[in-house]
Amino acid sequence: MKNKQFTFDDQQLLEDIMTHRRDIRGNNFLPDPLSDDSLHKIITSASRAPSVGFSQPWEFVIIRDQQVKKHIAKSFSIENKIAQRKFTDEKLSRYSELKLEGILEAPVNIAVFYKPSKMPVLGQNSMPEMGEYSVVCAIQNMWLMSRAMNIGMGWVSILNPLRVKEILNAPAENKLVAYLCFGYVKAFFSTPELERLHWEKRKDLQATTYNERF
Amino acid sequence: MKNKQFTFDDQQLLEDIMTHRRDIRGNNFLPDPLSDDSLHKIITSASRAPSVGFSQPWEFVIIRDQQVKKHIAKSFSIENKIAQRKFTDEKLSRYSELKLEGILEAPVNIAVFYKPSKMPVLGQNSMPEMGEYSVVCAIQNMWLMSRAMNIGMGWVSILNPLRVKEILNAPAENKLVAYLCFGYVKAFFSTPELERLHWEKRKDLQATTYNERF
Repeated sequence: MKNKQFTFDDQQLLEDIMTHRRDIRGNNFLPDPLSDDSLHKIITSASRAPSVGFSQPWEFVIIRDQQVKKHIAKSFSIENKIAQRKFTDEKLSRYSELKLEGILEAPVNIAVFYKPSKMPVLGQNSMPEMGEYSVVCAIQNMWLMSRAMNIGMGWVSILNPLRVKEILNAPAENKLVAYLCFGYVKAFFSTPELERLHWEKRKDLQATTYNERF
Repeated sequence: MKNKQFTFDDQQLLEDIMTHRRDIRGNNFLPDPLSDDSLHKIITSASRAPSVGFSQPWEFVIIRDQQVKKHIAKSFSIENKIAQRKFTDEKLSRYSELKLEGILEAPVNIAVFYKPSKMPVLGQNSMPEMGEYSVVCAIQNMWLMSRAMNIGMGWVSILNPLRVKEILNAPAENKLVAYLCFGYVKAFFSTPELERLHWEKRKDLQATTYNERF
């Protein structure tokens, strides 16, 4: 269909989905399984993302095997100990109380990779990061679609990407962009956890928006 | 509100918005102005994106001044000549016929920057790209929200990011993530232009999805 028009109610609904999207961790995932249909729908939403030069440079590994997850969780533990040292005083003690991932608790994990093209890609010359950025657009689609399906998603970034590649036997040229956890949840809170816990404040949008130039 | 539940119709609508989102170029933008309210809604949707450690590391420059746009368009011309050389034979001749940006035709351009935090950011240690990736999530929110408002968006990646920083007087530590064009459109086509023109084929999703490991 050409020129499909959306209504004001449609915009409002999209705003609602965006506003109620949360990062979900292990203290909030339910063990209930996810159907293959649900996963298919989530991955299909990824493939509807924009990609530079229509390169669609994404690859997905769906992980349900608890043994594989245990290896990933081990990488988290090592990296989390290192990351923690960046914080001092009050933040250090609060850091150790945060639950930051749901690798073992989520019934499904999905590792998302950037697969570079062997051929030149239209639009990916002056800004070579565009390939990875396309994969991130796909991930944001997955996040919003999951939320609309009342399924929680969490993005785990405290991992050694090379170790994850090794565990998943990824090709050398692939780059890990995200390690995601999926499952039904106990609750979708109305605000981000780090905002609720006063770890960081919400920024004033006006202060980050400029006209014509800085 | 805690635990807001979305319905099957809500998912379908989100799927529709994702499916009908397109990259818009200069041959498709209308000159009609965009209201401040519309722009505010689009930028607010960016601020609803996930960000690593709730760091919200995004900054926006809204550009309407045709003189500023002309400087940016000049960078496009230079970079496009360089990029073009990567292609040979039939693709080279077809490349020169493609309209790849809408900098001057779109009534509004928005440059989106990643602003690194001065303090350590929770979750941005093992994978330092997480800051930029958060900005890309914000951009995908802007794209979907624009589409739901029947406003077109195009992402221009054929630009020298350092030259764009210079033109916009950006702080040294900022990184250009995206240069976006916004406006009403003549048509939202049902498929990506590069698919329609057989520049690239749509990939088989099955072939890019693995179970447990590669």
